[in-house]
Parts: sequence; structure tokens; C-alpha cells
Amino acid sequence: MSRGNAWVVTIGNELLRGEIVDSNKSFLSERLLDLELEATRHVSVPDEPEAIAEILRDGASRARVVLVSGGLGPTRDDITSETAAKTFGRALVRDPEALRHIQAYFSSAGRQMTENNATQADFPEGAEILENPLGTAPGFMLDVDGCLLFFMPGVPRELYRMTDEEVLPRLRARIEGTAAVRSVLLRTFGMGESNLDRLLDDLVRDDPAAELGFRTQFPDNLVRVLVRGEDAAAAEAKLASLSAQVRERLGDLVVGEGERHLEEIVGELLRERALTIALAESCTGGLLSSRLTDVPGSSDYLLESLVTYSNRSKIRDLGVSAADIEAYGAVSDPVARQMAEGVRTRNGADIGVAITGVAGPGGGTEAKPVGTVYVGLADAEGTRSRHYQLVQERTRNKQLAAQVALDWVRRRLLGLEDHDENFPRVRIHEGTAR
Amino acid sequence: MSRGNAWVVTIGNELLRGEIVDSNKSFLSERLLDLELEATRHVSVPDEPEAIAEILRDGASRARVVLVSGGLGPTRDDITSETAAKTFGRALVRDPEALRHIQAYFSSAGRQMTENNATQADFPEGAEILENPLGTAPGFMLDVDGCLLFFMPGVPRELYRMTDEEVLPRLRARIEGTAAVRSVLLRTFGMGESNLDRLLDDLVRDDPAAELGFRTQFPDNLVRVLVRGEDAAAAEAKLASLSAQVRERLGDLVVGEGERHLEEIVGELLRERALTIALAESCTGGLLSSRLTDVPGSSDYLLESLVTYSNRSKIRDLGVSAADIEAYGAVSDPVARQMAEGVRTRNGADIGVAITGVAGPGGGTEAKPVGTVYVGLADAEGTRSRHYQLVQERTRNKQLAAQVALDWVRRRLLGLEDHDENFPRVRIHEGTAR
Repeated sequence: MSRGNAWVVTIGNELLRGEIVDSNKSFLSERLLDLELEATRHVSVPDEPEAIAEILRDGASRARVVLVSGGLGPTRDDITSETAAKTFGRALVRDPEALRHIQAYFSSAGRQMTENNATQADFPEGAEILENPLGTAPGFMLDVDGCLLFFMPGVPRELYRMTDEEVLPRLRARIEGTAAVRSVLLRTFGMGESNLDRLLDDLVRDDPAAELGFRTQFPDNLVRVLVRGEDAAAAEAKLASLSAQVRERLGDLVVGEGERHLEEIVGELLRERALTIALAESCTGGLLSSRLTDVPGSSDYLLESLVTYSNRSKIRDLGVSAADIEAYGAVSDPVARQMAEGVRTRNGADIGVAITGVAGPGGGTEAKPVGTVYVGLADAEGTRSRHYQLVQERTRNKQLAAQVALDWVRRRLLGLEDHDENFPRVRIHEGTAR
Repeated sequence: MSRGNAWVVTIGNELLRGEIVDSNKSFLSERLLDLELEATRHVSVPDEPEAIAEILRDGASRARVVLVSGGLGPTRDDITSETAAKTFGRALVRDPEALRHIQAYFSSAGRQMTENNATQADFPEGAEILENPLGTAPGFMLDVDGCLLFFMPGVPRELYRMTDEEVLPRLRARIEGTAAVRSVLLRTFGMGESNLDRLLDDLVRDDPAAELGFRTQFPDNLVRVLVRGEDAAAAEAKLASLSAQVRERLGDLVVGEGERHLEEIVGELLRERALTIALAESCTGGLLSSRLTDVPGSSDYLLESLVTYSNRSKIRDLGVSAADIEAYGAVSDPVARQMAEGVRTRNGADIGVAITGVAGPGGGTEAKPVGTVYVGLADAEGTRSRHYQLVQERTRNKQLAAQVALDWVRRRLLGLEDHDENFPRVRIHEGTAR
């Protein structure tokens, strides 16, 4: 099936010291798979000329494609370009175009460019330069006796963009092959990986030309649907039918596609419907508000968010009944509803959302253990509250609580079913990297 | 690289397909560093005999220790033990003790043991078996001409426990530390990597036994000070003096050590001094509040946070003067001060902090480009506001704005200098040196 093998090489002492969990390798391997290139080796080496040179030589002689990340920065221990030049007997030449890009970058930031940064414009002779719109370190491609080596920065966001915009198109163009591969990445929330796998497995079990890949991006779980066909048309048709089956099985669990997160999806729904929203957060401490405001233009629909961490502010700012806090506790159905109504009313918002819960590690009781969360939702149709039992760990609880609230808003806006009492079926260990 | 060099090898097609972010390698490397063993290579290979055999041979001949994870399961593609036996010319023998353990595991789970599972009791002749209290797959250690190879399951929780309880004690016993390595990780905020490098470079340039490593964990920059000495005492003394020099050069830029983030440090300072804080956030949208509430027990000092995204709520909730918003704009020195005073007063807090700025991408003007931020700070000594010119990208601006505000609070609480007008010297592209 494979059109060739690829090596993924990441460079940096911090990787070898375990200071960083290297997610670039999995990202790159997944992208290679879309091109029918199988990663046959992942290697990480320290910022040392000999180690880097050895692995580059090795890769160039044994793989068809080598993706390298790291060591393109401005500091002394960033020696990848220099080492690549030496390894393959090329001169190191400064590229005026790239230098201009770096200079422009600095002046736009109103900063002085240092000689350190200028060296980021040095490349092995014959290199094809890969643009980096997000940083000063451009990448480059070398063709060494037919093996394509791509050198990229280690910063994930820069690497991701360079891979998709600069590397994959070049690979696609160079690599011939008849079989076509198509894939789609579905973003789901509410069910853990192993349950998703069990739920979908039979759809592809007996089909060598179809694959399902599962990946956690806590609190979401991503499902990659990948198919192969004799040509593009066949692959696209096959993908359409398989992904339709998958979507039908998953139903409301699918929140969107690719890298669009729930805050963008909800923001777009609010904008389309010209609705406004106001938030009252307790246990999430502003996380939901912060996520919504990560989206440019969110000020068009987000009116206000109150992090009412104390009972006093719940009572004063949201008009929550002191008696109810006394009787039912701050983490309770009536308080969640009153918080949602209070923040909606004071802002004249279309939707009021409230979250109150026990984030932990302290504060749990027999009746309301850590992870107990109530979400209140007030809109033109009235006010409801839902109880969720989340997990044991504080930051995960915050992330999950914000996510269930967002997802409930999404479902309301789309007229979908509300969550059932077992939602979300996400266990904390499935949120971890592996 | 050093006498105590180690390789970390992880096995599994799922790794090479990028379906999993491999966190085992960073875990194992960190543990090795505790034993003064430096990982000099990370390698991942698929579940293929040739690939596994090659890397095991390679590692055994070049490293002192090889930690291997994965491929010990009961399925057909779990071939690590068998391949290790073949590679090093050993017979595969079934261990009765291990078999009993596996049988016990199944009966305790009320399940039937299959022949597949029985193969998990097969080990290369001469292997020392490593117990796995959390699963059916025991690990094992091989001594190949003085190189110690440890084979462990890939499931993180099983691997973690086996590493700490079975592997590290054996390593500690076998490896006589010829040289000692000591290191400390300093967390800094306010200066980019290349500037840090230039500022500190001469301290280690001519000392082969000392290293400075730089890593961005935006918005912080981490400096690892690492030294080698003839023995533990020598290394510790050397580290003490070098890190003291580094700290002196960096001064107030050092916010703490290791993985303790600014919100924990500020939270601890507030708790020690029994002070309360209240926040008014505009452009950060709740991010500062969310970070403070990531710290358990933060409800003891954080009274309330208002995300006053609209002018209306700034005026109504914080008592900001509509005339001043009109005259100076919502992103201005007087508004920042009034927001800080307003939120402090309404909560009777010791400290009121306010952030207003242009996060971008829209909303920038000639006079107030994207990245313009005003932070207001109100306490018993009065109210001040500072102007910061941050960067070009929305989420980075939010992160930086929250961080400068937190760092200003830290400095006030410690009686340090306030920021100068060029603070922070952090550029968005500085991440590139990963």
C-alpha cells in the first residue's frame, strides 16, 4: 500500500531530558499517512552536531522522505541548518529574501533585529525555503539524491502551519502514485476513545481500504476516517459514504470537523442567529469566558461574564437567594438556575449560562463529591439546570465543566437532544496522552 | 555524549501512525536524568521484527542502558520478547512464576486465560523478570555484554509503576555514578530566549562541565542550569555557585523554579500575607481569573472577577466614567485605573487588578495598535496603571496581558521594581528555539 517510507526526526536537548512531550512526531506521522507515506521511524536526538549529522545521513540513505523539526531558532544551540549543510557538503548561504522577512518581522514588532536572528536566514546551498508566517525561522527543503528532507521549527503552531501549507503540497506534487487517499477528521465530545472504537469498529473491520483513527485532544476526542480508492473520485465517494455512516452512529456527539473548537462553533451559531450570551461562572473560574473570547469578534455576542467565586457575589450580583444557598448549597440546581437567570436579566442577554460545581481537590462531600457540577441555562423558553458528575482532578473538571456547558448551548441552538444523565462518558485516563 | 548514556525505544504501529502522542519517552528520560543517566536517543519503531531487532542491536552496542516499551501484550503483533530473544541469540523460555501471576490475574478478574495470554510468560533465557502489578504483561531485564536492556509494557500506568518499582532500583544498584549531574530549572518572564542567551552565555562558554538550556513555555522562558562534577558534592557546589550567578544576572526576571507557574507563586504570596484580590478583565476575557482559579484553594483570596467586555458593564459594574470612556477610550490609563478601583471597592478587596486592551485582530488604530494593553492596580497605597505594547496575535496577547498583570502583582507583593516601559521583551516568534 505504501508509496514510500518516511522518517520523523525531532531535535532538542529538552526532548531527551523529557521536559517536553513531543507531539510533533504524531502530528507529522498522521499527515504523512494521508499521503500514503508510512513513518517507519521516529528519532529524537540532542542539539549535537554528530548526533544530528548521523541521523540525517542515515535517514537520507534509508528513507524517501525525512521530516525534521527543531533547532532552527536564534540561540547558540540551534545548529540544525549549519549541521545539515556540513552533513551534505553544502555551503551555508544567507538568503536575502528570508532576511528581509525576518527584518520586517522585527520592525512590525518595533524591535531591533540581532545577529542571532539574522542567522535564521542562513540555509544550505540549493535549499528550497519554506515560509513561516508565524515566526522568524523559515524552514527549508533539501533534495539529497532523491530523498526529500524537510526542516521545520519545533514550535508546534509554526510546524503545523508550515507542514500543511509548505510541506504537504510539495510532497503531493513530487510523489506519484495511482491510489488516492482521502480522510476527514471528526471532532466529538462526550464519549471516550475506547467506547468510540467499540461503537464504530465493525464499520471498517473487514475493509482493508478503510481505517478509523482515534486521538484525544482533551476534552474532545478526534476520529479520523481514512479511505483509499483507485482514484480521487473513488476515494471521495468511499469517504462520503463511510463518514456518513460514522456520523450517523455518533449522532450529536459530533461537534464539528478538524481543528475548529466548540467555542468557535458556538460563537458562529450565536452570530448567525444574532443572539447574545452572558455567563456566570463559579467552579470554572472564567475558563468558559476565556475560551469564548479566544474567538475574534466574540464581543459581538458575549456581553459579560461574572466569575462569582464567593457566595456574597452570587447573592449581590446575580440575585441568588441566600436562603437557597443555605438550604441547598452553592452547588445545587436552584442556585445554578438563579445564577443563569440573574446574569441573563442583568445584561438583557438572549442566553444566560451558569456553572457551579466542586472542582476539587477539596470541598467534596458524600452527597456532592469532587466533580459534581450543575449547569444552568436561561433563555426565552425558560430556565433549566442539569447535573453532571465529572472527574477527580481540578483542571480537568474545569475543562470538562466549561465544555459540557458549551456543548449544551450548541445543542440548544441546533435544536438537538439535551444531554442524558450519563453525559459525558469521558473518563479521565482517556484524556491523558495515552 | 556522556558515560551514562541511555536510549529510549518505544515500539508500536500506533506510534508511527501518529494515533498516540508518546508520553512514555519523556517520562522515562526524566527518570533517567534523576539517575544521572542522559538519554542520548529516542527511537520509535513499528511492530516489525527487523526494525525491532536492528534498534535493539544498535542500542545494546552503543548505549549503557536501553529502556524499551511496548509490544509485550497478548496479541499477534506483540513480538518484542520473541524478537529480543532472537536478536541476542537466546532461547524463549516460559516462566512458571510469571504464568501463575497471569493465571491469578485472570481468575481474580473472573475471566478465562487464553494461550495468547500464556505467551506473556515467555522470556529470553537469562532474563530477569520485572513484576507488573497493574497488568498481565510482566517486563524483563537483559544484560547484553554489560548493556542493560529493560523491556516494559507500553500502557503508561503500568510502565510508570514498573519503572519506579522495578527498573530504577536495579539501575541504581548497578550503575556506579562516575560523574554526577545536577541541574535546576529557572522560570523567567519578561525576556526572550535569544536575549537571555546573550545575557548569560559568557557564564558557561568556556566551561565544558556546565550548560545552559533555554526553552519557551509561552509566555515564560525556562533556563535550565546543568552542571557535571566528579561527585555529587562537587556537582551540587558547582550548581549552587553557577545558579547564583545566573539568578543575579536575571534579577527580577526569575519568577520561580521548575513547573510552578506564576498563578501559584502569586497565590502563595497572597495567602502568606492574608490578602484578597478581585479582578476586572476586558481583553483577557477571564483568562487571568481562570489561571488564578487553577490553583486549589484560590477561593481563599480571589473574591470576584468581572469580565466587563462591554462599555456598559464597565460603567454599571465598575463605576467607570462614561465621559472618560468617551474622551480617552475604553483602552486607556484612566479607564484601567477606574476599573481596578471599582472592582477593589465593590469587593472590599486588598488588591484590585484590571486589564483593558486591544487583543486583535480587529480594533487596532494608529494610536492604539493591536497589542496595546493597560493594566490597572489598586491597593492600599493607591492606584496606578501601566501601558504595555504586546504582540500581534490575539491568543498570545491574552496570555501576555494576563501574565504581565500577574507579574506586576508579584513584584508589588515582593517589593520589587515595577516593570520598565519596554517590558516585556518577549516576542511572539521567540518560541522558535524549541
